[in-house]
Amino acid sequence: MKIYDFAFAPNPRRLRIFVAEKGLKIPLEQVDIFAGKNRTPEMLAKNPAGGLPVVELDDGSCLAESVAICRYLEGLHPEPNMVGKNSREQAVIEMWNRRIELGLFAAAGRAFQHTNELFKARIKQFPEYGATQREAAAQQLQWLDAQIGNKPFIAADRFTIADITAEVAVDFAAQAAGVAADPALKNLARWYESVSSRPSAKA
Amino acid sequence: MKIYDFAFAPNPRRLRIFVAEKGLKIPLEQVDIFAGKNRTPEMLAKNPAGGLPVVELDDGSCLAESVAICRYLEGLHPEPNMVGKNSREQAVIEMWNRRIELGLFAAAGRAFQHTNELFKARIKQFPEYGATQREAAAQQLQWLDAQIGNKPFIAADRFTIADITAEVAVDFAAQAAGVAADPALKNLARWYESVSSRPSAKA
Repeated sequence: MKIYDFAFAPNPRRLRIFVAEKGLKIPLEQVDIFAGKNRTPEMLAKNPAGGLPVVELDDGSCLAESVAICRYLEGLHPEPNMVGKNSREQAVIEMWNRRIELGLFAAAGRAFQHTNELFKARIKQFPEYGATQREAAAQQLQWLDAQIGNKPFIAADRFTIADITAEVAVDFAAQAAGVAADPALKNLARWYESVSSRPSAKA
Repeated sequence: MKIYDFAFAPNPRRLRIFVAEKGLKIPLEQVDIFAGKNRTPEMLAKNPAGGLPVVELDDGSCLAESVAICRYLEGLHPEPNMVGKNSREQAVIEMWNRRIELGLFAAAGRAFQHTNELFKARIKQFPEYGATQREAAAQQLQWLDAQIGNKPFIAADRFTIADITAEVAVDFAAQAAGVAADPALKNLARWYESVSSRPSAKA
């Protein structure tokens, strides 16, 4: 098994953290998104949607989409459980994971794409729209703070894939979209301090 | 169990089709998104993210996010299998489901929000941006046609949740974003004819 990775992109980081939490060692091969290497005919044959990460299995077939890959790895390596132990828990974890994807993560992504120089030659940018997405990302951080409350983790009594998505989304919003979490958001700050001090955060 | 539904929105329709394919009867209660009824304190207590559908379980707890709810229902009612029979198949189906969500479905949603009168008072609209999202949706339809090729279904040898998402996304793109599938896209047209003639399409 091999992971096509890009060190600077948030979705590959989600998978790297998941792999680290599982205690797995899977070789990484860098594919430079900024240079368009994810859109070569060779990579599009592996993932016609063009994104990263992509996992190449030992039979040569490929899997894409971070959460789909994580679910597959959890089937092979059930412990520690990060996707849910039964269908009820799986649903709750998936619900939280998606709320963060569709909320903070997506808003930060749109802000990044519409305000950063990196995308100038790649898409038609609407900087004013990007500014509204920065505001949306900031609101999502407030929302997340309220949702976390006193809970140690986002979706269960332990660290799950929803925490990974949120951790990566918080960092991505700060680094790529210029929307850092306000330290006054105490619940979020406490949770972030906890998850980002895990060894997997460096993956 | 009860579903908080809205007949005119695409995500609740995904769940209704899934429920119909399972042969289940679950009571529906309408919540008018256009009138903001999904954002009342009562509904936000059930789903703090504010979207629909929401399922209220018999113990009073609630689940949100269409795909999370479908995964939960599949746990209770395994046949017909629509989410995957093992972790490999689950990953492949989730990969396709997400490709369509992030591609066609999301582009059509952004086109709808930024070009339709319905959203004028609700968000700051950028009609020119909406136009680029219409183009993106049209490109996604072409991409989907190429991906379907001669396959009977999108992700497996049978109808799955990925077909539901694609079926709803194709209709949503046509009806809400004004991006109808070109009949010259023969693979897509054949697949669409097949899935939309299932009784569940009317759910």
